[in-house]
Amino acid sequence: MGRLTASRRVTRLTLDGVNRQRPDAVAVEEPLEIRVAGTPLSVTMRTPGHDVELAAGFLVSEGVISRGDQFSRAIHCGGPGTGGADGNTYNVLDLTLAPGVDLPSPDIARSFYTTSSCGVCGTASIEAVEKVSSYDVASDGIRVSAHDVAAFPDRLREQQKTFDKTGGLHGAALFDVATGELLVAREDVGRHNAVDKVVGWALLNDRLPLRGTVLQVSGRVSFELVQKAVMAGIPMLSAVSAPSSLAIELAERAGLTLAAFVRGNSMNLYTRTDRIIAPSTTPATTDLASVR
Amino acid sequence: MGRLTASRRVTRLTLDGVNRQRPDAVAVEEPLEIRVAGTPLSVTMRTPGHDVELAAGFLVSEGVISRGDQFSRAIHCGGPGTGGADGNTYNVLDLTLAPGVDLPSPDIARSFYTTSSCGVCGTASIEAVEKVSSYDVASDGIRVSAHDVAAFPDRLREQQKTFDKTGGLHGAALFDVATGELLVAREDVGRHNAVDKVVGWALLNDRLPLRGTVLQVSGRVSFELVQKAVMAGIPMLSAVSAPSSLAIELAERAGLTLAAFVRGNSMNLYTRTDRIIAPSTTPATTDLASVR
Repeated sequence: MGRLTASRRVTRLTLDGVNRQRPDAVAVEEPLEIRVAGTPLSVTMRTPGHDVELAAGFLVSEGVISRGDQFSRAIHCGGPGTGGADGNTYNVLDLTLAPGVDLPSPDIARSFYTTSSCGVCGTASIEAVEKVSSYDVASDGIRVSAHDVAAFPDRLREQQKTFDKTGGLHGAALFDVATGELLVAREDVGRHNAVDKVVGWALLNDRLPLRGTVLQVSGRVSFELVQKAVMAGIPMLSAVSAPSSLAIELAERAGLTLAAFVRGNSMNLYTRTDRIIAPSTTPATTDLASVR
Repeated sequence: MGRLTASRRVTRLTLDGVNRQRPDAVAVEEPLEIRVAGTPLSVTMRTPGHDVELAAGFLVSEGVISRGDQFSRAIHCGGPGTGGADGNTYNVLDLTLAPGVDLPSPDIARSFYTTSSCGVCGTASIEAVEKVSSYDVASDGIRVSAHDVAAFPDRLREQQKTFDKTGGLHGAALFDVATGELLVAREDVGRHNAVDKVVGWALLNDRLPLRGTVLQVSGRVSFELVQKAVMAGIPMLSAVSAPSSLAIELAERAGLTLAAFVRGNSMNLYTRTDRIIAPSTTPATTDLASVR
């Protein structure tokens, strides 16, 4: 869409006396309203581009759809006053689901977290995800070498062309474990959006569930990122930064392999370490299966 | 609350053959449901602790309240099945507003972004914030030395005790420009939450609007962070990482000074640079007022 970055004038100041004005590239952030059958469902602040993937991935994450044939089409809504030279901001996207697919509840954003009886706790959140996902990641038999895992962050970074310009975008990439291929990489000002775009790409290409893949993200791992992986059937999530307590708990319950602090030649493994093939220089400790 | 960090068993693996298991501190993430007068309003994934500040700051950010006397009290809801030794998860908080204060719309999370007529664009979002804020940050006459700005990130970091343990938390701190004092610092797994906690602290201490202060954050600057600063009457926002395009646009329209990439002895200034006192070693360029 050509709107990933924008040029803004900036004053660069240093304490030792340099002070100059120059144009600088910044990451574009704009709201996207996602509608289903004309009804507004969600507004997210996102980096424009791959909007259909973002919306499709959002619906997968929220448990509305789980197969490509449940998604019919998407159109950017236009009209008088919506801005832009052609009268369209491209910031409103209306999705049409296949006949027979239930429309999402308008209360969708809350549905994962709350239970009708007893308020909110982490356990309730985890049980809600377990109940809602169409896919079982625990049964995925992939084996991934630690060397491959250690290389994923750099391979994602190579794809993050916008980040190199702005320093302001999160990235997510999907790797096929059997072939080693990088299937898709996406960037966004929101780290949840970057993952939704990856998952939406998979849905639109009839790749769900994403068995035999690893999702690599550029930042930290929250509960919601693990949730998105589980909803898409991804058996392993790898991150450059730290995981939260609830992210680890959901990964453990769902049987997802969680790696974090994957930096340089080292990594932390939190759950389902039996899927990781340790370097062969440590024969006494290559069996990681004891840590579940 | 003693729940900022949790211990989890982790397998630390390096490619040159080190492989050991150890307990590791991770940042706790749990959902908080915010209710007003018993009606659920929002669920946010947050780091437990300072929940009343978080909820109060959320209501300020959303334009529901803007003064301490509009807030009456908050109680953690308990009950059978909500978990914990005392039957309370401390994950549901019910707020009572002062008599006469309008209850928030259940549609509150969407109200900033959408307009009834023409869908969503960045301009509509910015106009909504301008319309809703009780405070005018453009008129704040503070002057801040570049030396002070350059020191804010380290001063925030000194307060981020949990980050040092987990690497997983965002931080936000408020500085009084006249005295140089650090007024408050808060951490959270969510960067929006860290700012809400700071703003909520100010509301509960009758400090709104926060004239004459600078808000320092540990990460990037999105539209929503600028929005929160404007809603609380904070005239300057400083960040360690990158700003988004819409963050800059809102800062410009609202008259907020925005500094980003504040690292070591340098910084980028995007808006209202007239408030920054440049180092005296560069007399020819100390007047930054031309960049508005």
